[in-house]
Parts: sequence; structure tokens; C-alpha cells
Amino acid sequence: MPHAQPAGAHTVRRHNTGLVLGAIAEAGAVSRATVAAHTGLTKATVSSVVEAMIAADLVAETGQEQRSGRGRRGTELTLSPHGMHGLGVEIGVDYLATCLVDLTGEVRKRRIRGGDNRNRSVASVLGRLTTLTRTALADAQALGVPIGGLGLAVPGLVEPAAGVLRTAPNLGWREVDLDGELRARLDLADRPLLLGNEANFAALAELWSADDLPNFICVSGEIGIGAGIIIDSGLFEGVRGFSGEIGHLAIDPNGPRCSCGAHGCLEQLASVESILRAVGLWSAGAVDPTSVEALLDRLRAAHPATVQAVNEAGHWLGIALAGVVNVLDVPTIILGGRYATLQPWLADPITEELATRVLSATWHPVRVLASTVGPYAAVRGAATAVVRAIRTDPASFVPTLVSQLAADSPR
Amino acid sequence: MPHAQPAGAHTVRRHNTGLVLGAIAEAGAVSRATVAAHTGLTKATVSSVVEAMIAADLVAETGQEQRSGRGRRGTELTLSPHGMHGLGVEIGVDYLATCLVDLTGEVRKRRIRGGDNRNRSVASVLGRLTTLTRTALADAQALGVPIGGLGLAVPGLVEPAAGVLRTAPNLGWREVDLDGELRARLDLADRPLLLGNEANFAALAELWSADDLPNFICVSGEIGIGAGIIIDSGLFEGVRGFSGEIGHLAIDPNGPRCSCGAHGCLEQLASVESILRAVGLWSAGAVDPTSVEALLDRLRAAHPATVQAVNEAGHWLGIALAGVVNVLDVPTIILGGRYATLQPWLADPITEELATRVLSATWHPVRVLASTVGPYAAVRGAATAVVRAIRTDPASFVPTLVSQLAADSPR
Repeated sequence: MPHAQPAGAHTVRRHNTGLVLGAIAEAGAVSRATVAAHTGLTKATVSSVVEAMIAADLVAETGQEQRSGRGRRGTELTLSPHGMHGLGVEIGVDYLATCLVDLTGEVRKRRIRGGDNRNRSVASVLGRLTTLTRTALADAQALGVPIGGLGLAVPGLVEPAAGVLRTAPNLGWREVDLDGELRARLDLADRPLLLGNEANFAALAELWSADDLPNFICVSGEIGIGAGIIIDSGLFEGVRGFSGEIGHLAIDPNGPRCSCGAHGCLEQLASVESILRAVGLWSAGAVDPTSVEALLDRLRAAHPATVQAVNEAGHWLGIALAGVVNVLDVPTIILGGRYATLQPWLADPITEELATRVLSATWHPVRVLASTVGPYAAVRGAATAVVRAIRTDPASFVPTLVSQLAADSPR
Repeated sequence: MPHAQPAGAHTVRRHNTGLVLGAIAEAGAVSRATVAAHTGLTKATVSSVVEAMIAADLVAETGQEQRSGRGRRGTELTLSPHGMHGLGVEIGVDYLATCLVDLTGEVRKRRIRGGDNRNRSVASVLGRLTTLTRTALADAQALGVPIGGLGLAVPGLVEPAAGVLRTAPNLGWREVDLDGELRARLDLADRPLLLGNEANFAALAELWSADDLPNFICVSGEIGIGAGIIIDSGLFEGVRGFSGEIGHLAIDPNGPRCSCGAHGCLEQLASVESILRAVGLWSAGAVDPTSVEALLDRLRAAHPATVQAVNEAGHWLGIALAGVVNVLDVPTIILGGRYATLQPWLADPITEELATRVLSATWHPVRVLASTVGPYAAVRGAATAVVRAIRTDPASFVPTLVSQLAADSPR
């Protein structure tokens, strides 16, 4: 029988930094004594870890702890909003985006650059992305904050471990080594690049901003349609990380040909592009914000043909989502991306199909909610994924944390 | 910070019985010393637990341990095939079944009673089921083995904790308190009744009989179509236990009306019933074994219209399964129930649709396998679920185990 090796002092210190930072993140504002009680560490250990994290600008001291009852009130600790940030970067089908998020999860700066990426080469899109990312890195420098790493959201299938995009049908991209390409263009040193599907990052952004919503499907509607699946407060990625590709559910097997090569995929019948096409507002290969505004104006004015087109897309979406709920048994659907603004017109036809087609709907009706994160949730999720990684294992982002602890702190 | 209470001696003994039985189950045949090494318990504790389990006929001693190397060879321990059994019971749409499984997982006796249950009242079906179950209990008595509990497989949505069947569209049943109804008819005393969906039990039967197949979807084809989803070697039940209802995926939204009330569900296009109807072999409301044999004869003879009908059902199935794989990202599909015998004719059209429609298929083709458990996997899974529960916590099935340990054994 193998015997467990005792963890080295270095490993223990590294683990403790994550425990302490996690306890502060969860509480929002908390004393050293309370952190000690919540983590089971001694007060001396907590104090030395906290001092090192204050020095590294991961933790800040702010006034007095709010606490009832007797006893000395300790100084309040919070995550530092002025220390290390996460940078999210997104390749959309018709936009590029960056998002700077501080350690508390607040968005500090967002940049969006519109434009159809389908008519550009991979090199050209990555060139533009590099420029936008350099601008975001300059934003961070102007704010005086270091970047812990990059989260990169893409509209396709990725293998995160390999850093490779396998396919993005709406971009027409296949087999792009995004980790390699970006590292060749940007000086990331040894900072991590977290590659992920945009719908998965958007779902995580909803999870992290919601109170107590542990199980849902977040449907992102843009030119494509994707979904992120959250089960038990975690991302359900599938066996190889390819879950949630609902844009390619066959809804009308004899329907129009899709960018993926198959026929009758949901994307061809219910995407924002297909809605804009149906009402004559599609132009120039991109979801133009002016067109979306015009669509919303017509919907608010109850323009019959426009309401009818959105209603029809809602029915197709409802049929697909009923299938997803019949397979996964998830109680809540969140409409994200540009679907969020269309939610008042999409929710009824979706709910109608769910009520008819979900076998368990009589006992447990499925809720259809609009995103609370709003547009560009994916790039925010990508940035926050970096922040979450820092919170879990701060020492891997700030190696001096552990060496300082070794020199200064009681074991 | 709350302090963990020390576990009581009773709790520890109870836990140890499960540890020891689990180690014996996993090894197949093993010495007391090896059990001690695998569980981390002392040899004295293992010996006293084993003696109690031999007395309770859960464990048997069989000759010498097969082991190379030096040292005294211990007596070999195995699960006892003559002790407590699990009884599986199934309400099919057109049959009733029982299955007696011993502690090693071997089927000892199976009984099938055909007949359309759609034209009978709930009371009439439960009456017939009671008679069949009594016969199975008499079989166990004739074998001289006690029954630890019942597993009950049904073709519908169940809430196991409540013991209630919510709906079984193909039976036309809604809100049946199966736990209450069966306990009123059978003397089960305090033995557990594990209620579950038939496709889920069938998937578990495949998992438990397979070597190293941790992720798959098991599709059961009978009059209805259901699926059990296995992820990381466990059943993926969904949030409320209603996952895997693929029979009601909308494949042709304008297609025929389904028993669930919606239109164009997979069941209407690809079930064994719909195949038999398409080739003129359907009769009398049940899947007649003679009809299935006639179907297979025609397929073996390459009868064009029959091959074409099965091929078409395979394409519909493939479209639905491609959707399921796009959502779940699972690498293997097992065809179970009567689909298993049709696998040679179904696999190609299914694989064709998967290759076209699964976005990740280029990198990770999906395998389509026939069930290795064979027909009536669900009732076997239901019986084995009881056996697995006994193995995990034998003391809750044989309370004397713990009291005997308290009197006899070293702590």
C-alpha cells in the first residue's frame, strides 16, 4: 500500500496562501481572526500570510470589521482592487473585445472593436487582436496594475490543454494554435493563457455574478448560437471539453445548409443573423448595432412582421432547448449575448415549446431568464477566470509570496 | 468553527463492514492480509469483520489465495453467491420482468411475462406484477437465499425519494405512488425499494458489466426510446433525476403526434414499434418476439424495403444522437434493448449522421456499440443496484453484523 508523502513546507505555505485569499474573497471583508477561524489555520500563520499578501497588493486593509458582540474588533481585510488583474480577450465572429477585471471581479475597462472577421484571414484577425490586446495592456499599465494572465474566448471548439482551436465554423477557422500564435505576437512571458469556448466563459460569468443559481444553461445568441452548461455550480464541459454546441442541433433536418456542413441546424433558423435577415435588417456580414437598435424599435412598436419573425425564432429555440432540457434536466435557461435584449419577445414562444415538449415540465416548469451580466459576458468571464485562478493559487502568480513567507513567518 | 464529532464505535464498525466487503468485491478473490493492506484496517479488525460476514453468508472462504512470492498463503475470500440476493422488477410497456441477482452480480433466475400493458388499468398491471414478483420471491426461497431489497424499473419519469412515478407516456400513467402500491400488495417489511427509470438502470447494467467504459450514452429501444447517461463512471441523473429523455427530442417538428402530446418526437420515427409498423410486422399492441424474429430474418436476407425502413430509423436516431453528443460531448453510444440485435443495420446510418452533424467528430469520432448485457438489461440493472447497495453498506441489510462485531471483535 503506498504511503502518502508528507507535504513539503513550501507546498503547505503555497496552499495556505490560497486558503487565506479564498476566505477573504468569500467573506468580502473580514478580520484576521475570522479568517483563522474559517480556515483552521493559526492566527500567527494567517497574520504572516496576510502581511505577505498586503505587500504583494493582493489584499488591502480597510478600517474596522463590522461585527456585533463583544471583544476587540480586528482590522478589516478585503481583496485589493489595485493589485493584480485578469485580462479577457475575445474573438467574436463580428467583433473583437478585451476586458480588464480586478481581483474583486469588477470590470475596470472594456474595449470593443466591431467588424466582420469572416472575411479576413486568420493572420489579419490575430494582427488586429494583438493591437487591441496591446492597448488593453497599456490601459493596465496606465492604471498601475499588473496582469496575472490572459483568458481567451473563441466561438468554437477548443482543446484548452493543447491551446488549440479545433474548429470555429462561423469564422471558417480550423486547427489554429492560438496559444502559440498569441505568444509569438505578445510578450506574455510565463503568464498563463486560458483558452475557452465563448459560451462557456459567458456561462461562468453568469454563475459568478448570480446569487445561488447552481444549475442552468446559458444560451449565447450572436451570429452563432452556443451554450454553457452549469451543473452543481461548476461548468459541465463534457468528456473532452466540447459540450453545449446547441447551435448545431438539427431542428429541421431538411432545412438550410449550415456553416458546419450539416442541414437544418438551429443556427440557421434562430440566430440573431437569421432574425435580422428575416426582417430585412441584415447588412454587410456583421450584426450592426444600428440594425439591432432598429430591430428593438420595431419590436417596441409591435411591428407585426418583426414580432412574427422573432416569435418564430423563439419557437425554434424553444424546440431545441426543450431537447436540451429533456436530455440534461436543468431547471433554468439564461438568455445571453444579444438574446438578452430580445428576451421580452423570445421568452413566451420558448416557454410555450418547453411547456409542450419537456416531459417533466408539468412538475417542474423551466424558467427563462435574461442575462444579468449583459452583453459581452464571455470576455468578462474569460478575464474573471484568470482572477479566479489567482485567488485559488496566488503563489503561482506571485512567486515571492512563498519565499517571503519562508523567510518571515512562523511555520 | 464547528468541531467534527468523533464517530461512534457503532458507526465505525458499520463503515468497516462496507470497506471490507468492497475490497473483496473489487478483488474478486483475496486474502485477509491483502484486504487489511487495501483498506488500511488492522488484520485483527479485518478478521473479525470477515468472520461476521461469513456467518451472515455475505462472504465465502474458497481454498488458497493465488499469489506469487514468499510468505504464508492466506485462505481466499470471495463474495458469497449463496447469501443475500437483489431482486429486480420491471414494468415494460409490453412486458413484465423479474431478475434475481446474487452478491457477485450473476443472474440466478429471470422471468419475463409478455403482454400489452397499455390496454390495462394501473391496478390490473400492478396485480399481475405482484403475482410475478411473488413467484420470484418463491424462486429465492427455493434457492434458500434471502432478498435484500427490490429494484423497480419503469418506463417513465420517477422521483426516487418520493417513490412516485410522475409520468409514463407510453403506459398512459401519471402520478402513481409505486412504493406505496407495491408495499400494500407485497410483504416487503423494511426492505428498500429502489425506484428508477428503466434506461438509467440499463445504462448502469452496462457500466457494471463493462471493463473500463467510464463515459457513454446507453440508448434503450423498445416501444419507447430512453437513454441513460454515464459520465465519469456514474449515472448523470440531471438536477431532479429526469435526464436522458431522448425519446421526446423533436426531430421533425411537424411530424406525427406523440404519446407525450408534442409533435415529431424521435419515438414516433425510430422506435422498434415504428420500424415494425413501417414493414407491416406490427400487431396487437406489443412488440411480439415472433415479429422481431421475422424482422431479423428479412434483414439477414437483405429484403430491400425492410433494410430501407431500419436504415431510415437509424438516420433519425443518428440525428437525435448527434444532438445529444453535441450537447454532452460523450464518446460512445451503446445500443441496448431491442436495438442491440438491430445494431448491424442501425450502426451505419447512425454513424453517418454523427460524422456529419457532431462538430467534434473529425477529431474524436463517436463509437456505436451493441449492448454487451443483452436484452432485459434494465431489470438486471435494477437487481444489481440492490446488490451494490448491500456491498456498500452491508450492516444496513444485516443489522446483526454490527451487534455481533460489538460482542466479539477487537475495536
